[in-house]
Amino acid sequence: MKVYSVILAGGSGTRFWPLSRAAWPKQFLKLGSDAPLLLDTIRRLSTPLSQTVIVCGPTHAPKVRQMLKRLPKANLIVEPIARNTAPAVGLAAIQIASKDPSAILQVLPSDHAIRDVERFRSCLREAAQLASQGHLVTLGIKPTRPETGYGYIELGQSLGADSWTVQAFVEKPDAARAQQYLESGKFVWNGGIFIFRAQAILDAYRQHMPELAEKLSTLAASIGKRDYAARAKRVFKGLPSISIDYGVMEKANNLAVVRGEFGWSDLGSFASVAEVRSPDAEGNVVVAPNAQLVECRDCIVFGGSRALALVGLSGLVVVDTQDVLLMVPKKESQAVRKAVQAFQQRRLRRYL
Amino acid sequence: MKVYSVILAGGSGTRFWPLSRAAWPKQFLKLGSDAPLLLDTIRRLSTPLSQTVIVCGPTHAPKVRQMLKRLPKANLIVEPIARNTAPAVGLAAIQIASKDPSAILQVLPSDHAIRDVERFRSCLREAAQLASQGHLVTLGIKPTRPETGYGYIELGQSLGADSWTVQAFVEKPDAARAQQYLESGKFVWNGGIFIFRAQAILDAYRQHMPELAEKLSTLAASIGKRDYAARAKRVFKGLPSISIDYGVMEKANNLAVVRGEFGWSDLGSFASVAEVRSPDAEGNVVVAPNAQLVECRDCIVFGGSRALALVGLSGLVVVDTQDVLLMVPKKESQAVRKAVQAFQQRRLRRYL
Repeated sequence: MKVYSVILAGGSGTRFWPLSRAAWPKQFLKLGSDAPLLLDTIRRLSTPLSQTVIVCGPTHAPKVRQMLKRLPKANLIVEPIARNTAPAVGLAAIQIASKDPSAILQVLPSDHAIRDVERFRSCLREAAQLASQGHLVTLGIKPTRPETGYGYIELGQSLGADSWTVQAFVEKPDAARAQQYLESGKFVWNGGIFIFRAQAILDAYRQHMPELAEKLSTLAASIGKRDYAARAKRVFKGLPSISIDYGVMEKANNLAVVRGEFGWSDLGSFASVAEVRSPDAEGNVVVAPNAQLVECRDCIVFGGSRALALVGLSGLVVVDTQDVLLMVPKKESQAVRKAVQAFQQRRLRRYL
Repeated sequence: MKVYSVILAGGSGTRFWPLSRAAWPKQFLKLGSDAPLLLDTIRRLSTPLSQTVIVCGPTHAPKVRQMLKRLPKANLIVEPIARNTAPAVGLAAIQIASKDPSAILQVLPSDHAIRDVERFRSCLREAAQLASQGHLVTLGIKPTRPETGYGYIELGQSLGADSWTVQAFVEKPDAARAQQYLESGKFVWNGGIFIFRAQAILDAYRQHMPELAEKLSTLAASIGKRDYAARAKRVFKGLPSISIDYGVMEKANNLAVVRGEFGWSDLGSFASVAEVRSPDAEGNVVVAPNAQLVECRDCIVFGGSRALALVGLSGLVVVDTQDVLLMVPKKESQAVRKAVQAFQQRRLRRYL
């Protein structure tokens, strides 16, 4: 029973612009440590590269190859078009199952941060155990605040010390409901980490998304062959954009959830960097070798070689890259997209 | 009766750092318009360059020469060491008087802004009239707010429609006193603009600062000669640093003041730029060709070719130069010196 890691590296958001760019998305950024998030993700797993499969888009494939020179060529799966997680995971599952029918997959986003690697691995082991019994397993993150930005999973029947059947997948709640969820102890965050036997998830695809399963099956047969790229493009063009949560997990009945507490962050905004990199005594997180902060509090600063002189600032995000400077209040760091939109509208694409 | 302009360009403050640098001080910055303040100052006067004398330090002399190629060589007076305004004005007065004994001097800082040039010139004409009668004249700025950062002049006996004898020079007041001054109508700001006959100010020097007068007199004799630089250095080393206000104006008794309202600003901080360059509808002053401001208010932004993305900011000063970025709240823009100090302490002199 081998465990394979399937790393989803197809993301292309703008929440970390201008650190991230269209050609250089979040998973390549050194947000959690001094290594890119993608490398952090791989390093914190115990799977060898031969059992690591990365799914990404065509623009980013060369960068992944360069970053992971020892990754077997067949283990980089290129999605011709981003179609959310269901097609990506399906493609990886079919490819792995064709070589190792008893494979267990652990599917993980490539751009999250986790502080306590030991606890995380322990959860993954428990999840693999449940997966080997036929469950489609999710890692549920024990909530630490009434977060309204995440989906939740309601715990069902106990399956072990920290595992349950799944009562329900729940959409992002409002503040009052999020508070209830937190207090009840019966809900966990859906962190997008799934563990299942390759055959089990493919069975679920055939049951809940038969058309997708069929198309992926024909496509997987040509992975590594000369006509793969053209066929993949044709197939993906016709696919709906659908998440594995919505397409399978919310519909299947052999679900399980392992609850974990391992210092997880999805790094959803610049503000969240403070969850991962410990702020200094003044609450500042400074990832900028030439920054001088004078009487500043609760700021997040990313910079390069240029000198930064910040005086008397509070609660600000400052991101200084070679060609663009971004400044936005930390509380509104979601508003980064407004900056991106402003640049889009003015057709300043070279900055995006 | 010729009027000569004496422009004091020896300043080297840090209030506009990092726009200004030790080698590139405020008078060279394009703060008031698209031209350097020094050029603005000269252009708003009606004196020809042959009647314009500039006093500056040795570091800045080459820049002044380059900026003003048609300025007669003898009209650039280099102070070897900055010793405040009394020696600078004295040196200019002696040189001009040696060629034109009846000269009237109008002495002006090189780094202020004035909006209403016509009114300003009209005040200067009135002042020159009084100066020709033997008065040492100051232009007094009619106060528009209870400013505690300026010296004041108390008006004495009326000499004309908008001119008075001087009752007293008054140090920077506290807030309550500044409010009284404003309401009384009997006080004006001392803007550091003086008009007098060269002979009159030299008489005053001989009376109130005889030692300085003596030294300047011997030095002036060698202006333009080969040994001037060495002699000037020797003389200036031995001089006290003293302002013309303190050394002469506060002691003389043939004083007059012309009160003017001409949109004057001494540009004492980044915040003051908003007095000179009209803010947009959101209160922002943006002197940055590639800045995108989204939902920002009351900000002052200086930038160059780099793109700036400012989102949701309020009351901030952002100055982006090629090698340094400064950010400071507008209300605390005096705190720029703290940034400068931080760089000094860390021996980062290349940025100063």
